[in-house]
Amino acid sequence: MAIKILLNEDEIPRQWYNIAADMPNPMQPPLHPGTGQPVGPADLAPVFPMNLIEQEVSQERWIDIPEPVLDVYTIWRPTPLYRAVKLEQYLNCPVKIYYKNEGVSPPGSHKPNTAIAQAYYNKVFGTKRISTETGAGQWGSALSFACNQFGLEAKVYMVRISYEQKPYRRLMMNTWGATCIPSPSTETEAGRKILSQDPNSPGSLGIAISEAVEDAVTSEAAGRPPTKYSLGSVLNHVLLHQTVIGLEAQKQLAKVGDYPDIVVGCAGGGSNFAGCAFPFVRDKIAGKQIQIIAVEPTSCPTMTRGPFAYDFGDTVQMTPLLPMHTLGHDFVPAPIHAGGLRYHGMAPLVSQLIMDKLIEPRAVQQLETFEAGVTWARTEGFISAPETCHALAVVVQEAKKAKEEGKQKTILVNWSGHGIVDLGAYDAFFQGKLSDHEFPQSEIERALKAIESFPKPKL
Amino acid sequence: MAIKILLNEDEIPRQWYNIAADMPNPMQPPLHPGTGQPVGPADLAPVFPMNLIEQEVSQERWIDIPEPVLDVYTIWRPTPLYRAVKLEQYLNCPVKIYYKNEGVSPPGSHKPNTAIAQAYYNKVFGTKRISTETGAGQWGSALSFACNQFGLEAKVYMVRISYEQKPYRRLMMNTWGATCIPSPSTETEAGRKILSQDPNSPGSLGIAISEAVEDAVTSEAAGRPPTKYSLGSVLNHVLLHQTVIGLEAQKQLAKVGDYPDIVVGCAGGGSNFAGCAFPFVRDKIAGKQIQIIAVEPTSCPTMTRGPFAYDFGDTVQMTPLLPMHTLGHDFVPAPIHAGGLRYHGMAPLVSQLIMDKLIEPRAVQQLETFEAGVTWARTEGFISAPETCHALAVVVQEAKKAKEEGKQKTILVNWSGHGIVDLGAYDAFFQGKLSDHEFPQSEIERALKAIESFPKPKL
Repeated sequence: MAIKILLNEDEIPRQWYNIAADMPNPMQPPLHPGTGQPVGPADLAPVFPMNLIEQEVSQERWIDIPEPVLDVYTIWRPTPLYRAVKLEQYLNCPVKIYYKNEGVSPPGSHKPNTAIAQAYYNKVFGTKRISTETGAGQWGSALSFACNQFGLEAKVYMVRISYEQKPYRRLMMNTWGATCIPSPSTETEAGRKILSQDPNSPGSLGIAISEAVEDAVTSEAAGRPPTKYSLGSVLNHVLLHQTVIGLEAQKQLAKVGDYPDIVVGCAGGGSNFAGCAFPFVRDKIAGKQIQIIAVEPTSCPTMTRGPFAYDFGDTVQMTPLLPMHTLGHDFVPAPIHAGGLRYHGMAPLVSQLIMDKLIEPRAVQQLETFEAGVTWARTEGFISAPETCHALAVVVQEAKKAKEEGKQKTILVNWSGHGIVDLGAYDAFFQGKLSDHEFPQSEIERALKAIESFPKPKL
Repeated sequence: MAIKILLNEDEIPRQWYNIAADMPNPMQPPLHPGTGQPVGPADLAPVFPMNLIEQEVSQERWIDIPEPVLDVYTIWRPTPLYRAVKLEQYLNCPVKIYYKNEGVSPPGSHKPNTAIAQAYYNKVFGTKRISTETGAGQWGSALSFACNQFGLEAKVYMVRISYEQKPYRRLMMNTWGATCIPSPSTETEAGRKILSQDPNSPGSLGIAISEAVEDAVTSEAAGRPPTKYSLGSVLNHVLLHQTVIGLEAQKQLAKVGDYPDIVVGCAGGGSNFAGCAFPFVRDKIAGKQIQIIAVEPTSCPTMTRGPFAYDFGDTVQMTPLLPMHTLGHDFVPAPIHAGGLRYHGMAPLVSQLIMDKLIEPRAVQQLETFEAGVTWARTEGFISAPETCHALAVVVQEAKKAKEEGKQKTILVNWSGHGIVDLGAYDAFFQGKLSDHEFPQSEIERALKAIESFPKPKL
């Protein structure tokens, strides 16, 4: 019997949890790349609305979720917490496995938890239009959905190769009324510059970020409606908005009188992982025995191999310098199918908590992730996003380990999204076209070189 | 505020509702096309397992749902009943709109409600392998999911043009371990015959049915594991299994003290419509004032234009003659995007209830359905299957009518599936490539000619 632990709408948490209030070591500030000085709110004001900048630096432990945000959350929240009974039976290990199903949102992932919040704060601030970039399209579709709910225009710069190869995400954006164009485009200086050098450029997330930021900061001069830029991961306020996941899961586990020994999530920029894990990290800081695992691909081993250093958040060096685990802003990950995990850096909050030994990073190979995803589909029924499969692979690892150790364990995993528009990846797996990836030491040397001139964070 | 009315797992109905027990006029039997005599259980035994044949002809009002079926149902059931508050606000009409969200199942539609039951009964009967056909792939993916849950092999013959143009559904089937091949195939006599005449045949549902039935009835002789055939709509037992939808909806509406004035569903073969509507038809037979609307495309107006007559259920004349509304077994519907509604016939149970004036059929134009689907996505958030959009169009019609009449009404609609792998249809709509369809009187004359030699049902 599958077990779904449900909450009613009036049980949605009324506040987000801000882990900055409980960090054992304070966060180190973002730095201006030119001056090396901490970046202040005024520096960010052309890009983000001030109410989100205030959240970015807030030290308040609990931040009220505005009523209009809760109102839209109720379209799909509270999300069900499942007991993965069929997987447990299949694995035959001494574990209870719970998963938080974030795939039930209209765009199919956890991303709208912050997209809705960001659209709301922009609306309140007076923003009429939001620009953003997207790779495979999860974030672009979530932001399109959110802007539609609050009557804002959305402009999405989508990496050209994904735009052409993965039309479904773009079509979702259109259905929610957003404009999505391939990047590099002729609509920005940054795009035109790239196209003049390479008219057939396939684009990259770095280029798309440049275009989206330029769009926002030049809108006033260009006579466009007031525009701000929006980011779907990495930043503190983005992770904050995702904590509704873990707070709900805690309520749901309390209903069945349970508590996890292990919390698992996949981490690209860090937002779905943090959203589920941070409320449990809080308990760990308070003394609870709990293992918290952030999972990444071996092909992009930011947390397990990358140094903790100041680096740019983007390839084209437009952001402030962020204190984080990084493989260098010039790193180009292998074209694995988990597009959302192909990021050179990691959220500063997650990075600091790894340094503080509160979070354990783990890298898994691509084939193992798809094996876990197929096992999941053939037991629990649902088809998982390739990113999510990384977390599932560690669930299987930990279940087997519990059996070896002869210990009874309870595992909570954040099922961050469905894979219904990622089935091409499963097809490639079945056809034997996928491979594992090694990460050569020479890449670490390159990364160290890329950041060697930057200030160093305290270790 | 969105309003979700949830049930716990222990509130899933324990019995299906069999409307045959309450029909004001008894069902007329299927006939053998050769003899014109009623078809008996023995005639169907080579194709279906006897336990399902018994359900097909049962007159029991309530039929217990087996525990193993309930167990798999709990993966996604009970499904949420939503109040469509945002759509209500947008329409600004004096209506309350509730929708039953059947899109939350792993394959994304109502189809597994019967696929799971059929796989279970086959398993109990000793079947090791199930063959079926699929057009766009909703049914094939649901049956693949179901067979996987019960450890049965699944072989799906998928119309070749869909197999090539719509790979996502096929990839879902593979992910759940099923074999899916394009039809016509070289693996059956029927397929080879078609290919010998036209090596580039795009296939059709009729051809795929022939292949799947041939596969089942020849398996023993060919040394394959014991195989039966499975159908995803039209038949009595299929509609029976779907009644869990309407029974749950009744419980959910009772929780908020409400009852619909109007129940709406789209109807291709009739199963999602019947599943939601039949428990309310029961109330209507008992004297309740309620309007029950079955919605079809104007391009395939089986219920609104087709005669009630005996006709083959399939194009290639392999099935018994069924008493139903039909456009003639040789009818080829226009290539509209709602593939699930492109069927020449209608479930005999639904057809009889239309004759009895208990169900009101209505045809809607294609453009109106996509307009309703886009409105839905931009208010309620979720992206609807093109089939489902037909029901949504009638919700909008009825809301406006309530305003004109100055009456307060409550509408229940069955949201039968999501449209995430149908976004190409939305794209065609946005690009202005879709059109409305007229249905010429000459097509009715052709239909009458196709059935003129068959016995006539009582009117």
